[in-house]
Amino acid sequence: MPPDAARRSDRSRRAILVAALELVEALGYSRLTIEAVAARAGVGKQTIYRWWSSKGPLLFEAFVELGPVERDPRPSGDLATDLRLELRATVEELNERRFDQVCRVLVHEARTDLVTLLLTPRRVRLEERLRAGQRAGEVRLDVDVAAAADLLLGPVHQRWLLRTAPLSGEHADAVVDLVLRALRG
Amino acid sequence: MPPDAARRSDRSRRAILVAALELVEALGYSRLTIEAVAARAGVGKQTIYRWWSSKGPLLFEAFVELGPVERDPRPSGDLATDLRLELRATVEELNERRFDQVCRVLVHEARTDLVTLLLTPRRVRLEERLRAGQRAGEVRLDVDVAAAADLLLGPVHQRWLLRTAPLSGEHADAVVDLVLRALRG
Repeated sequence: MPPDAARRSDRSRRAILVAALELVEALGYSRLTIEAVAARAGVGKQTIYRWWSSKGPLLFEAFVELGPVERDPRPSGDLATDLRLELRATVEELNERRFDQVCRVLVHEARTDLVTLLLTPRRVRLEERLRAGQRAGEVRLDVDVAAAADLLLGPVHQRWLLRTAPLSGEHADAVVDLVLRALRG
Repeated sequence: MPPDAARRSDRSRRAILVAALELVEALGYSRLTIEAVAARAGVGKQTIYRWWSSKGPLLFEAFVELGPVERDPRPSGDLATDLRLELRATVEELNERRFDQVCRVLVHEARTDLVTLLLTPRRVRLEERLRAGQRAGEVRLDVDVAAAADLLLGPVHQRWLLRTAPLSGEHADAVVDLVLRALRG
């Protein structure tokens, strides 16, 4: 591709990603169409389909590339405080309309593998904190760290996926308090 | 409606429900169509749309009416054993192809309210067992029973909804063992 064409193509790509994210935030996943994204980005529908097969992968790439809101609390050094901070940050992220709507498109298109990928960084942070807790004697050594992370995240993710109840900081705290009893020596 | 017409209508309704359930089991949710259900039940497509707006509510009614496989373990009297039995029964139900596929249609149609309804009987049984445990002194009285049920079901439902890992009896047991530590006095 000559340099000018490459630059144009790059600009189109970015315009599409920005438009997709803005529209899913404004309209919600069920009313988002490729036509609307094309119109807002000032490109033809075919340009979008050349790069992405459907709304799901397009939004996934937009979200990863344009960057999620950073929300990584600093560890305080106290296990209970840190787990509460992490789980509350998880709840805030899930409650963010943009994140929520991107994930719902992905669930709708049966791309739960991509949803899992978006949820993985938080899980990794939690597991690291639990392992640090084991080294510091705050968490029993025979606790399976992956199972413990499941216990913390499972109730929150379930509420979010099934929309059984609103996600709140209080709910997250209640989960942490109960799980802490299972972790301590 | 004259008695003959009412009987015919009743027969059609049942034929549709049976056909829907058989087809979702055989084809999976993404390949299930109203056309195929109509053909198998020997009715016109319009007959189906007169009663149901889409695949989701049709399958929900079929599942509830034609009855899920009964899988209610008898309580043994021991808290650990009972919780393991209940959670393993939950896993078996979720792994049943018919149940799984019906729920996936419902998630796909954003009817998670109906999925939650299908999951509710197990949650009720678990909460009852936990309350009985409180009366018998097996579970601390200050434990929030709903939160404890969340801790048991959340990790299992999360695996099932996101398909992050296969649902197994061993995973269910690991969850129970960890949660038990949080429940006991």
